[in-house]
Formats: sequence, C-alpha cells, structure tokens
Amino acid sequence: MVDRTSYRPAVAALSGYVPGEQPPPGKFIKLNTNENPYPPPPQVVEAIKQAAHGPLNRYPDPMAGAFRNAAAQAFGLPGPEWVLAGNGSDEILTLLVRGFVGEGEKLRLPFPSYVLYRTLADIQGAQWEQVEFDENWQLPNSFGESGEKLKLALLPNPNSPSGTIVSRDAIVDLASELPCPLVVDEAYADFAEENCIDLVVKHDNIFVSRTLSKSYGLAGIRFGFLIAQPDVISQLAKIKDSYNCDSISIAAATAAMNSSEWLADNCRRIIATRIRMALELQKMGFLVTPSQANFIWCRHKTIDHRSIYDFLKQQQILVRLMDYGHRGDGLRISVGTDEQIDALLFLLANYVS
Amino acid sequence: MVDRTSYRPAVAALSGYVPGEQPPPGKFIKLNTNENPYPPPPQVVEAIKQAAHGPLNRYPDPMAGAFRNAAAQAFGLPGPEWVLAGNGSDEILTLLVRGFVGEGEKLRLPFPSYVLYRTLADIQGAQWEQVEFDENWQLPNSFGESGEKLKLALLPNPNSPSGTIVSRDAIVDLASELPCPLVVDEAYADFAEENCIDLVVKHDNIFVSRTLSKSYGLAGIRFGFLIAQPDVISQLAKIKDSYNCDSISIAAATAAMNSSEWLADNCRRIIATRIRMALELQKMGFLVTPSQANFIWCRHKTIDHRSIYDFLKQQQILVRLMDYGHRGDGLRISVGTDEQIDALLFLLANYVS
Repeated sequence: MVDRTSYRPAVAALSGYVPGEQPPPGKFIKLNTNENPYPPPPQVVEAIKQAAHGPLNRYPDPMAGAFRNAAAQAFGLPGPEWVLAGNGSDEILTLLVRGFVGEGEKLRLPFPSYVLYRTLADIQGAQWEQVEFDENWQLPNSFGESGEKLKLALLPNPNSPSGTIVSRDAIVDLASELPCPLVVDEAYADFAEENCIDLVVKHDNIFVSRTLSKSYGLAGIRFGFLIAQPDVISQLAKIKDSYNCDSISIAAATAAMNSSEWLADNCRRIIATRIRMALELQKMGFLVTPSQANFIWCRHKTIDHRSIYDFLKQQQILVRLMDYGHRGDGLRISVGTDEQIDALLFLLANYVS
Repeated sequence: MVDRTSYRPAVAALSGYVPGEQPPPGKFIKLNTNENPYPPPPQVVEAIKQAAHGPLNRYPDPMAGAFRNAAAQAFGLPGPEWVLAGNGSDEILTLLVRGFVGEGEKLRLPFPSYVLYRTLADIQGAQWEQVEFDENWQLPNSFGESGEKLKLALLPNPNSPSGTIVSRDAIVDLASELPCPLVVDEAYADFAEENCIDLVVKHDNIFVSRTLSKSYGLAGIRFGFLIAQPDVISQLAKIKDSYNCDSISIAAATAAMNSSEWLADNCRRIIATRIRMALELQKMGFLVTPSQANFIWCRHKTIDHRSIYDFLKQQQILVRLMDYGHRGDGLRISVGTDEQIDALLFLLANYVS
C-alpha cells in the first residue's frame, strides 16, 4: 500500500513543544507561564473596540505600518524599516530560524533556557547545540566561538528560567566573535535594568526580539516584533505570510506603543512584588536566583520540588516545575498580583515549616 | 570580512510573493483582491467587542477549541479533531508545505493558479511543477500522476484567476492516483455549487483548506482552517507556533461559524451581482469565463488589457491585471457591491465603445 501522507522525517520525529498548562479561566491562580497578572492598558482595549468597527472585510496592512512607525518612535530607532511585526515573538523566532538555518545547519542556544528554540531547529531539520551557563548563570565565552555550519545564535535576555541577564558589554563581545547573527530575545527586558535595543544600530549582527505578551499584558493578542537593520527586516519580510498580523492586533499594538506611562507603572508594580516575593521565599529556605524578569527561579534547600508543585496544584496554584537533568530541578514562579502572591506565600509557609 | 548575516540561499534568491495592491482606505474602489465588499456578520463584530474585555493578559487556547467545536458542527464533521485553526489560510498552506515538502522535494500545482504556492516551495528550498489547464480550464489527468519526490499537490477549487472548478468525482480520481496528499484550497467554495468537505472523511489524502477572508467578509482578522483526518491535524499541530491564533480572532471565527443565515444571504447577493456583471461584460465584447467564485476572469476580444487596467486605475477603480506568458493576459475583477459594479460597468461601457 502506498503511504499517501508521508510527513517530512523531521516532522514525524518531532515530539512537539509543550507550552505551560492552560487550565480553564478562573479555576487556578496561574503563576506558570509568565503572563502579566494585570489587564492591558485601557487605551488598547479601546483601540480594539474601535477596530471592530473598521473595514474587517479588507486585508490588513501587510507590513503593519502604523505599528512600525509607533515602535520606531517609542524606541528611538532611525525609522520604521528597522522593525518587523510578527504574530507573537514566536513567529519572529520561527522566521529567524527559517531565514537563516537550513536543513543540517546549526543553531546555538544557552542551557538551561527556552526549549522552544530547539523545537524550531528540529522542525527545520536543523541541528542545535547548547552552551551551558555556569552555576552562577554566567555565560561562558565559548558561546561566541565559531562553529561549523553555525548560522544563528539565540540568547534570551533576561533568561528563562533564571531571570538573569548577560551584560550589554558581553553581548557586544559575543556578537563580534560570532560568525552569525546573535538574536537577543528580550521578551522580559521591560522588567530588567538594561536592554540591547540601541546596540542594533551599531552592530549589524545583533537583532532584538520583543513581545507584547509579558510587560504589556497582551498575551492574548499575539504580537511580537524584531528590531534589526533594514536589510534583515526586508529579507525576513519575504518569507513571512503576506498578512501575518491582523487589523485588530495591529491597532492594539499601535495603541500599546503609546502607553509608556502605563508600562512604567505596571513594571514598577511587578518589580516591587518580585522583590517582596524573593525575600519571603528566602526566609522559607528557598535559594532564590536574583531575577530581572517577571518570574523567579528558586530551589528549596531541603524539600523536594515535585512535592511542592503537587501541593500547590492541589491548592489551585499553578507554578512551573522544570527539570534540567544533571543541573537538577526547581520551580519557576511568575510574579502575580499582590493578592495572588500573598496566597502563594501563605500556603508555602505552612507547607515548608 | 566575515559575512555575519548569511541568509539561507533559498531565502536570498527569493523575490517574495507580491499581494494585490492595497491603497489607503476610501480612495479606490477595490476590485483586485477578492475581498467581500460587505461588512462581516454583526454578531462577529459583537464577539470582538466582548473579547476586548476578556482576559487579554492570558495566552489564548493553543488549539482554538471553541472554534474547532463550532466548525465541526457547522460542517457536519465527526469531531473537532478534524479541524486545525490557522492565522489565515496562508498559514495553513505554509504549515502544509513545511510539514510535507523537504528541501529538494516537490510540490505540484495547476497553471494558471495561485502563485503563492510556488513562493512557499521556494522559501522551503523545494521544487514545484505546474500542470497546465487546457484552454477550457479543464485539468488534465496528468495532475494525478506519480512523480519523483512528489510530496504534495495543491489545487485551488474554485481556481483563481478562472473561477472554474474541478468536479468532486475528478478530485476523488486524482487523489486515488496521487502518491501524496491532495489539498483542495476552497477559499472561494462558498460561492460555488459544490465543495469537497465530506470527501475528507472517506479519503485520507484529501485535505480541504478554508478561509474566513472571502465569504465571511473577515480578511482583516486572519483566520483560516484545515479539514483533514485527525492524524494529519495532530502532526501539523506540532509545527505550528504554540499560540498561532489570538483570543479575539478565535472569538470572531467562532461567532462566524454560527452565522449560517448571514452567510447564505451574503453569498446569494454576491452571486446575483456576479451573474449580472458577467452578462454586461459579455455585451461589451469581453470573453467571460463562467465563474463559481466572487470574481470574474475576462479577456476583451479587441482591446488591450493593460490599457483597460490603466484607464480604470485612473478612474480610481483597481482590478487585477494578470499575465500568464504564452496563455496571454487578462483581467480578474472581484465582485463588488452593486453600486461599485454599476460604476465599473458605466466607465467600461464608455471606454470600450
């Protein structure tokens, strides 16, 4: 019998990326996928309602011009041609892998970090290699070394699960050594003390990817973007779907770019909660990695992490249990509202004492 | 000097797919990209406004469960696991090519038809081969023949630019001959007399792709879907971005599935205009191909098509001028509102007489 549906071998072999659990809304306190616990800027909600009455029967602007202009202005870029809009930064990462890494070629990422990068290489039929952080979450210089068929390096900064950052100076050094683009995935950078956006102008192989899912409270609308030199943007635009962003998300994202006050307030609030949460977890015997993101990576000195995870889940609090093999496991806990974190800390205090 | 941004050769060589012109809203009568001239169902607009107040800070449902259930019911499918939601049917087509066609492998499409299929093969570093329609837009049986490294066949039905269809019986014959999946791209099927959705249940290599961009008047929200056997759906789900559809478009698409009366009325209206438009164009000396879509392919007996196109553009009416090499060129004109078509016919009548 002829097999009439034979998938590419790379696809058939794939186990697929498994995102964090998404229970039905309302049942759980969700501290497992690093969403913003607060609703998005009111002007974004207003923009969506207005766009609902726009010409939805017409195709959207293929390059999301209104958003690009607003983003270029918000980030002080030379112009809109430095920005590529995507259907979530997941799409931006997919386009980068499809644009630079062929079958049998190689992508580099740190370990432990964002597992999706490996999945993207696997889908492409490409290879990946990991450079391991040292035990203090410092990135070895070997991340910048040349390598056969190395076509792309991906660096989440702040990193997940650690919430730590690689300094701007170190990033410039890595990029000047690397034979390929260095993509700094700044999904969490609004919660950090520094970022790399202005490096893009001076360094043609430093690209920065961003998302509205975290700091803008807009995981639901799927909007991310890449900042890179104009030639990179126009090459990647050739391989994206013609109309990759819809009219409504373009309107929402444009409004978000004009919400800088809201953004600053929201980040301040989350950082304050993060600091309090870190201190309390330490008091309970957790080793807490200093975080510059909207989550905390922690490991308890004596108590098994799975038992903590199971206990919290039973109490309807979802956190993320991550197991990194020889580096051991731990808990990644998103910063929720103060009320949510009060509930978490109260339950944990009873459990660990 | 090291070239630090070396694109995949397939990407660097790409000229990129060029969609139809999108002028600023309001300036032109747009009859060039087969959009629906009418606004979408009111319940869809309402659903979007409601979703604007939903939990936008949370990730959407990765598999768009609410939509899948509604679609399975609307199309009489065995269950939601027969449906894959996508960010426009463009994404569905991209996933199909990425899922089935490796670098150096082959995709088959008819000619003249949807040029995007070739672009998708080019992006993948794959090859494509075209089987040419005969002069009456009948598809030769050779479309079903085996071929070395042939991994996917794509058939728009109704076809663009012709608006003609290949019969269900012929599609069953082609699929049983082909060594690979036959994707019937039914972007325009709601305007046709028949479709292939029920064939999917009996034939594991017939897949149907659909979009809300045309018949539902929702090009702006980017929503398409694939109907195929559950194993196909779950394999392709592994390679899509985790959250490929946003909360708002999922809400809109779900509401659209419950708008069957609106859909029937809208299609009736467009078909009535199409019939009138075809008759009038014939009276003016156009050879009109009988259409089962929301556009008409026509060629004038004596007057140069580019001059007609230029004249209409000057009068602020955009149509699509298509040039198919040895088969010659022609005009593809979308069915607009009755008022828009009146304006078109009035201007054309003066020009061609």
